[in-house]
Amino acid sequence: MQLNLTQKILENHLVKGDLKAGEPIALTIDQTLTQDATGTLAALEFEALGLEKVRTQVSASYVDHNILQADHKNPDDHRFLQSFAARFGLWFSPPGNGICHQLHMLNFGKPGCTLLGSDSHTVHAGGLAMLAMGAGGLDVAAAMAGEAFHLTCPKVMGIRLTGQLPPWIGAKDIILELLRRLTVKGGVGWILEYFGPGVEELNLPQRCAICNMGAELGATGSIFPSDQTTKNFLTNQKREADFASMAADPESKYDQVVELNLSELEPLVACPSSPDNVKTARELAGVPLDQIIIGSCAHSGYGSLMKAANNLKGRKVDESTRLHVNPGSRQALAQISMNGGLVDLLEAGARIHQSGCLGCIGIGQAPATKTNSLRTFPRNFPGRSGTINDQVYLAGPEVATASALFGRIADPREIGFDPVIPDPPDLHPDALIPPPEDGANIKIRRGPNIAPFPELKPLPEELECKVVLKLEDNITTDDIMPAGSSILPLRSNIPAISQFVFHNKDKDFAKRAQNYGTCVVVGGENYGQGSSREHAALGPRYLGVRIKLALSFARIHRANLINFGIVPLTFKNPLDYQNLSQDETVVFTGLVGAILNGEESITARVGEQSMTFVLEASPREREILAAGGLLNFIKGNISD
Amino acid sequence: MQLNLTQKILENHLVKGDLKAGEPIALTIDQTLTQDATGTLAALEFEALGLEKVRTQVSASYVDHNILQADHKNPDDHRFLQSFAARFGLWFSPPGNGICHQLHMLNFGKPGCTLLGSDSHTVHAGGLAMLAMGAGGLDVAAAMAGEAFHLTCPKVMGIRLTGQLPPWIGAKDIILELLRRLTVKGGVGWILEYFGPGVEELNLPQRCAICNMGAELGATGSIFPSDQTTKNFLTNQKREADFASMAADPESKYDQVVELNLSELEPLVACPSSPDNVKTARELAGVPLDQIIIGSCAHSGYGSLMKAANNLKGRKVDESTRLHVNPGSRQALAQISMNGGLVDLLEAGARIHQSGCLGCIGIGQAPATKTNSLRTFPRNFPGRSGTINDQVYLAGPEVATASALFGRIADPREIGFDPVIPDPPDLHPDALIPPPEDGANIKIRRGPNIAPFPELKPLPEELECKVVLKLEDNITTDDIMPAGSSILPLRSNIPAISQFVFHNKDKDFAKRAQNYGTCVVVGGENYGQGSSREHAALGPRYLGVRIKLALSFARIHRANLINFGIVPLTFKNPLDYQNLSQDETVVFTGLVGAILNGEESITARVGEQSMTFVLEASPREREILAAGGLLNFIKGNISD
Repeated sequence: MQLNLTQKILENHLVKGDLKAGEPIALTIDQTLTQDATGTLAALEFEALGLEKVRTQVSASYVDHNILQADHKNPDDHRFLQSFAARFGLWFSPPGNGICHQLHMLNFGKPGCTLLGSDSHTVHAGGLAMLAMGAGGLDVAAAMAGEAFHLTCPKVMGIRLTGQLPPWIGAKDIILELLRRLTVKGGVGWILEYFGPGVEELNLPQRCAICNMGAELGATGSIFPSDQTTKNFLTNQKREADFASMAADPESKYDQVVELNLSELEPLVACPSSPDNVKTARELAGVPLDQIIIGSCAHSGYGSLMKAANNLKGRKVDESTRLHVNPGSRQALAQISMNGGLVDLLEAGARIHQSGCLGCIGIGQAPATKTNSLRTFPRNFPGRSGTINDQVYLAGPEVATASALFGRIADPREIGFDPVIPDPPDLHPDALIPPPEDGANIKIRRGPNIAPFPELKPLPEELECKVVLKLEDNITTDDIMPAGSSILPLRSNIPAISQFVFHNKDKDFAKRAQNYGTCVVVGGENYGQGSSREHAALGPRYLGVRIKLALSFARIHRANLINFGIVPLTFKNPLDYQNLSQDETVVFTGLVGAILNGEESITARVGEQSMTFVLEASPREREILAAGGLLNFIKGNISD
Repeated sequence: MQLNLTQKILENHLVKGDLKAGEPIALTIDQTLTQDATGTLAALEFEALGLEKVRTQVSASYVDHNILQADHKNPDDHRFLQSFAARFGLWFSPPGNGICHQLHMLNFGKPGCTLLGSDSHTVHAGGLAMLAMGAGGLDVAAAMAGEAFHLTCPKVMGIRLTGQLPPWIGAKDIILELLRRLTVKGGVGWILEYFGPGVEELNLPQRCAICNMGAELGATGSIFPSDQTTKNFLTNQKREADFASMAADPESKYDQVVELNLSELEPLVACPSSPDNVKTARELAGVPLDQIIIGSCAHSGYGSLMKAANNLKGRKVDESTRLHVNPGSRQALAQISMNGGLVDLLEAGARIHQSGCLGCIGIGQAPATKTNSLRTFPRNFPGRSGTINDQVYLAGPEVATASALFGRIADPREIGFDPVIPDPPDLHPDALIPPPEDGANIKIRRGPNIAPFPELKPLPEELECKVVLKLEDNITTDDIMPAGSSILPLRSNIPAISQFVFHNKDKDFAKRAQNYGTCVVVGGENYGQGSSREHAALGPRYLGVRIKLALSFARIHRANLINFGIVPLTFKNPLDYQNLSQDETVVFTGLVGAILNGEESITARVGEQSMTFVLEASPREREILAAGGLLNFIKGNISD
C-alpha cells in the first residue's frame, strides 16, 4: 500500500489501535524533550514512577524559559533539573545555552523518529521528517518511562508547495499565509505534511520554522520529507549517520490537499492579537514600532540572525525604535560572532541578549504602554508580552529587519532585501551535558520552592458543582494559567501557582473556586488553545475544578485535563452554552458509572433543566478520569 | 604653593568656601551622569525647576539598571528618559548599550573636570584624573541646572604605589588590599589620590576600577594623575583633544600617605558579606562556587573580558558551575567579537548577557539557595544578589577566570594566568544618542507609573515623634530601600516604592510608620553606607520619618537626608543609643529655631529623660532642612 510520510512513521511506531483518523492509537516514543517551565513538574512526576533511568533513545532537559533569576527560585530549579538529568540519564542543557527546539534540531533531530515534548512548539522538529508532538509534562514523563503515547489518530493534510521563493519571502510568510487561510482552529485534528517541488526551495531551519508555527494552527504536528537538504544540514552538524531519506510514496493520498505557490507570496504580518489576523506588510507599511525583536524558537538560528546582520550592515536602526536580537543557541551566537555578523548587528544598534526564549514567553522585553511591537515570535496572544493591552505584530526576520531601519512596519522590498548569506562557520560549541554512565549515586538537589506533588482524589460518583466562571471562544492556556516572570517561577509549587489561575481574566477566580469547593468552568469553542502547559489543567484541578464544559477543546489541553482528572465535556446542544451562567449549580448523578460504561452522553441537572453533554474519550481515558488522573492510573501498572 | 592633584581641581572649580578639610565648600560641575534607577526622579526634579536646557558641558542619561522589562514600567521609563534627554539637551544611552560608568569613561571622561553622578560608582571616572563624585539625584538635578555642588571639603589621602604588578594581580587586588587595611569606613571624609612610580603599571580601565571601589571605602572620590597612558586611551577613543596632563606638584603634601607595594600583592577575595572582609585566594582555595560572574561597572571592559577569554581559550568551564559574562558596553562586546575572544568564551561554556548592570544590582542572576557565588562586582552586601542569605564573594577577573575552570575558588597562579591581551580592535559602535540642536518642541512621554513628585512640607517648630525602628551599625541603603527587579521599577512612583522601605529588615515598617504619622529611625555607626539612591531618604520621608538619629552617617546618605528634609542627628552621648528603644516617643521643642540659629546641640525629651543630639550642618543645609528639603529651597531662587 502506498503511504504518505506521516502514515509511514505512525505505522513504524504503532503499538495499539488502528490507523484510522479519529480512532485512539498509541505510539512508541523515541525521543523526549522538556523545558524548565514544564520540566520540573514532569521531573517530579517521573520520579513518582519509581524507575532507575529513562527508557527512550534520547531524553533531553533544557533550561530556556525561566532564565532571569530574580531570586533563588529559578536557579534552584536549574540545579534540580541538572541533578535530575544526571540521576536519571537525560542530556542537560543549562540556561543561556539556547532554546530547546533550536538545540534539539541541531543536536538530536533524526528523520523517521518520534519526539514528544512538554512544549507546544516541539512540532518544530517536523522539519527534519520527525513526527514531533507537544504534550503535557505528565505524558512526557510517561514516555520517558517507556510508556506509549496515547492520542487520537490524526487526519493528514497535504500542503503542496510549488513555485519559487522570492528573495524577500521567508518561512514566516508561508506559515502566516496558511494561518490566514485556515485560522488558528484550522489544523485541529490534523497533521500537516508538506510535499511538492517547492520543498527544495526551503532550507532546513525554514522547514522547522514552518512546522513550529503549525502549533498556531492547532495541528497535532507538521512534517517535511528528508532529502539532500536534510542530509547537508546533518552533515554540517557532524551527524551524517543520523540521516535517513524519508518521503511519501509517489501514489500515496492525503485526506485533504492545500496548494501553495511560493512565487505568489507577499511579505505578511500577523496583527494584534492572534496569529491568524494576517495582513500584508504593504498594507501595514507605516505603522510605528517602538520595539522589534528577532528571536524565539521559530527564527533565532544562524540563518535568521545572519539575514538581519547582512541587511543591517553599514546601516543604522532608527533611533525611535529598539531592535532586540535573541540568539536561539550558543552555536548561532558563536557562528555570527566568528564571521562578523555580530559586529554588524552591534554597529547597527541592535541589543544582543543571552540565548533563550525571553520575551516570547513574557520573560522580559515587555513593550512600553500603548506602543506597537513587532516580533518574529510564533504567538501574539493578548498580554503574553507582559504588558496589558499590548499591540504585538508577528513577522519574519525579513520584515523585522526592514522595519528596524525605519522604526515602522516596512516591506522588505523597500530595502532591496538580500537573502544570500555565507555558509555557517564550522563551529559547534559543546553545549549539552551528557548523562553519566551510571547516575544511581547522584543526589538530587531540591530548592525550597519545589513543593510535593498534590494528592489528586478519584472522581466521586455524585458531583454537585457550581459554575465558577463562564468564558468566550478561543480561551488560551495563557488566559487559564498566565506565564510571565513573577508567576512561572512558581511552576513546581502547585498551591502557590494555582492562585494565579485566570488571573488576567478574573482576579478573584482562585478564591471563589476554593470557596465553592467543587466547581465547573464553562468555555466556548477551541477552549485551551496555545501552549502545552499542564499547569493550565493541574492549577484549576487543585482549586476544585472537576468538570470543564465547552463547545470544543484544543487537543493538548483536552489531554492535559484528562491527565489531571478533569472531565472535558462538550455541549450536545450548543444553545445550552447560552443558557448556563456563572454561579449556577450543575448536578451530575452516577457520573463514574457513566464514564466507565463508555456512555457518550452525560446528563446533568441545572435547576429545573436537564442538559446533555458529550464525552468523547477512549476506554483508557475513561479509566484515567475515574482514577482521578494519569499518575494514579499508571502508578503500580508500569512494566519492570 | 605646591598643590596635589585633588587640590588643583578643587581650586579650579571652587565657587564658595575655603579649601580646608571639614569646611563647607561649593564647586562648579562640568559634567553630570544619571542612570535610570535614580535618573527618572532626577529628571522629574529637574523639570520642576522650570529650565529650558541643562547648563553643564556634558550631561548624559544612561539606562543600565532596569533593563529586564517584566512589564510596561521599565520600558515606559526608558521612553520617558529618552524624551527628557532630547527635550533638555542630554546625551541618551538606551538600554543594552552598557553600564554608565564604562560608557562615560569611554565617551566623556576628561582630565581635570568635575563630574557629578546620581550613582555612587560615579567615582570610577577618577581614573581619568577627573574629580568624580556620587550624589543624590536631586543634587545632580541642581548641577544640571548649573547650580554649584555643596559638600564638606575632604581631606586628601595619598596612596603611593610602588613596585611592579605581577601578572596574576589586577586592579581588584589593589583595592581589596586597601579595603582590608582601611575597612568600609576608612575613606569617609577623604579623597584618595594615587601617585608614585607604580601608577604607570596600571592601564586606564584598571585605574578606573580602583577608583570605582573607592566607593566601598566610603571615600568622597578617588583620583589618578593623567599621563601617557591616559593620552593613549583617549587617542584610541578618538578623543585626543580631551587630553590634558594633570598631576600633583612635586613638593605637594597629603593629609596622610599610605604605601602600597604592588610587587607584594597576592590575589585577594572579599568574603560574604562585606567588601572589606578580605582573605587571600590561596586561603580560600577550594570553596565550591555555584556561580561566577564577570561584569559590573568595575570589571566589564575590553581588558577584563579579553583576559578571561584568553585564559579560557581551549579550556572548559567546570560543569558544576556557571560562568556569566556581562559586557560593560556595546563597544567591549563588539571588540571581543571582532578579535575572536567571544567565540573563545562561548566555546569554554560562558553565558553571555546583554550589556548592563544586571546581577550587580539584583536584576537577575540571583544565586541558588545555600550556594556560593563569586563576582567581579564592587559590592556583596547581604541580599543584594536577590537571594536571601546569599554567600557572595568578590574578586577580580583573574581569580574569577581561574575559579571557573575548577568550580571552586582558585588562585590564578594555579592556571599560570597570562595577562597579555591584544590591543583593542579599532571599533567604536555609535552608542549614545546626542541631543538635538533644539529640543523645545520634543514631547515628553510619561508612562502610567510616573507619579507626581510628592509635596514635602516645611519642618514644624514642635515635633513629637515615635521611634519606628532601631537598627545596628553599617545599615546600607540596600537595607533602607531594597533594590531588585520587583521594587526598582517603582522608582518614579514614590507612594508605591515607599511601601518597601526596610522591607528586608522589617516587613511591617511602612505600615507602622504611616500609623505613627511622624516618626524617627535610630541607627548605629556608618548609617546609610552604600549606594547613592535618594529613595533611601525620600521613601522614609514620604512615610513620615522626619528625624534620623545615629552614631554616625555615611556621607552621601546624610546629604540625601538633608535634601529631602530629614534631620540627621548624631548622639552626643553614645550611651543614649543603648537607652533608646522602639516605640518610645521623642519630643523636640523649638526645633526649627534651633536649626536656623546654627545650634550644634539639639535637645529632646524621651519620657522623663533629656537627650542631646548633634547637628553638624552648614548654614545652607540648615535652611534646606527648615524649608523641608532642597527642592523647596532652590525653587524660585534659581538664576535665570
